[in-house]
Amino acid sequence: MEIGILGTGMVGRTIGSKLVQIGHQVMLGSRDAANPKAIAWANKVSSPHALYGTFKNAAEFGEIIFNCTLGSASLDVLLQVGAKNLKDKLLIDVSNPIDYSSEGLTLTVCNTDSLGEQIQRAFPETRVVKTLNTMNCNMMIEPDKVPGRTNVFVSGNDPKAKEAVAEILRDWFGWKSIIDLGDITTSRGVEMYLVFWSSIRHAVTADRFNIKVMTS
Amino acid sequence: MEIGILGTGMVGRTIGSKLVQIGHQVMLGSRDAANPKAIAWANKVSSPHALYGTFKNAAEFGEIIFNCTLGSASLDVLLQVGAKNLKDKLLIDVSNPIDYSSEGLTLTVCNTDSLGEQIQRAFPETRVVKTLNTMNCNMMIEPDKVPGRTNVFVSGNDPKAKEAVAEILRDWFGWKSIIDLGDITTSRGVEMYLVFWSSIRHAVTADRFNIKVMTS
Repeated sequence: MEIGILGTGMVGRTIGSKLVQIGHQVMLGSRDAANPKAIAWANKVSSPHALYGTFKNAAEFGEIIFNCTLGSASLDVLLQVGAKNLKDKLLIDVSNPIDYSSEGLTLTVCNTDSLGEQIQRAFPETRVVKTLNTMNCNMMIEPDKVPGRTNVFVSGNDPKAKEAVAEILRDWFGWKSIIDLGDITTSRGVEMYLVFWSSIRHAVTADRFNIKVMTS
Repeated sequence: MEIGILGTGMVGRTIGSKLVQIGHQVMLGSRDAANPKAIAWANKVSSPHALYGTFKNAAEFGEIIFNCTLGSASLDVLLQVGAKNLKDKLLIDVSNPIDYSSEGLTLTVCNTDSLGEQIQRAFPETRVVKTLNTMNCNMMIEPDKVPGRTNVFVSGNDPKAKEAVAEILRDWFGWKSIIDLGDITTSRGVEMYLVFWSSIRHAVTADRFNIKVMTS
């Protein structure tokens, strides 16, 4: 499958490498067509299936698009890409709205709104599914490295889009316990969880950890 | 031990009943000395150790104080009680800053501040520890009803106060896996988690559930 990844940070590169590895064609998109991180990534992956270009190139290329940009930049990037290139497509939103302009860890949007909702509102003809943003990127693609079948969550308005994402999570990344939280407004919870996640990370002094929901 | 509980809602009554059951003297405090819910609780518990009175009475009574008021009312209640009655005491803050004036689930404070921090700032001579607010009240006092040794979290500035709370959680309530998140600013994460918790609750259709942090 042809997949566009917006963002050349660690998350985008990690997901991109995994997707190439399992046989997909991946284009990493960034502000500049010749982004040094994207070039280094393509050289490292060393496959004809590892491509790079602008955000717009990557979105045009992909049947499915992963949003791995900084949350604070996501809306700008997507507007740059244009609604036409996102129309009817599955947009898997992995980003977190971290406010890098403030001290400490705070979010640019929370409580009464979320980045997932903002994106869905801005692109009503795109099928936005929020997922995977509740963990470190190494965890995203190798869930079995942590024992206990921990959970990944999906949020979105379109049940079929969520089912497609659940298949991707299951078949491509190896997730076994996927929880459908509900519509895109449930992005608020998974985004606001970042602050808790950061405290837990500090407390357990592990990059690779995740939560498991246990019921009686 | 003599324990004051602020709030006569389900959380306060549930914790109060448990504490009386294991041999402590408990005073449930509310706005009115003769609150019907407090009277009904005392009748039901039917023990000379189950007492009730005003918020101030309960705070004066307790060597340890549980804040189980509505988060949106907590600061007002504590100001009513007065700093003198809280001085040097352990204040176990179980509340969540839910904004009942808004539709949907939103918080009265989050992101750049938290109720835990607000309380600690308002009462600098009180040893505030945030805990137990990440779950339903039945879960708080019966952690073993959910399998897998799930986690409870503590946040606070005073390491000795957190150690005392950990002992309470362990010896009185039966918690086995207690995670110290850090200083009182980590209240932000556990309070903001409420929105995520609410979505999970809806998805798993269980009142009694909790999360377990799994590491590799």
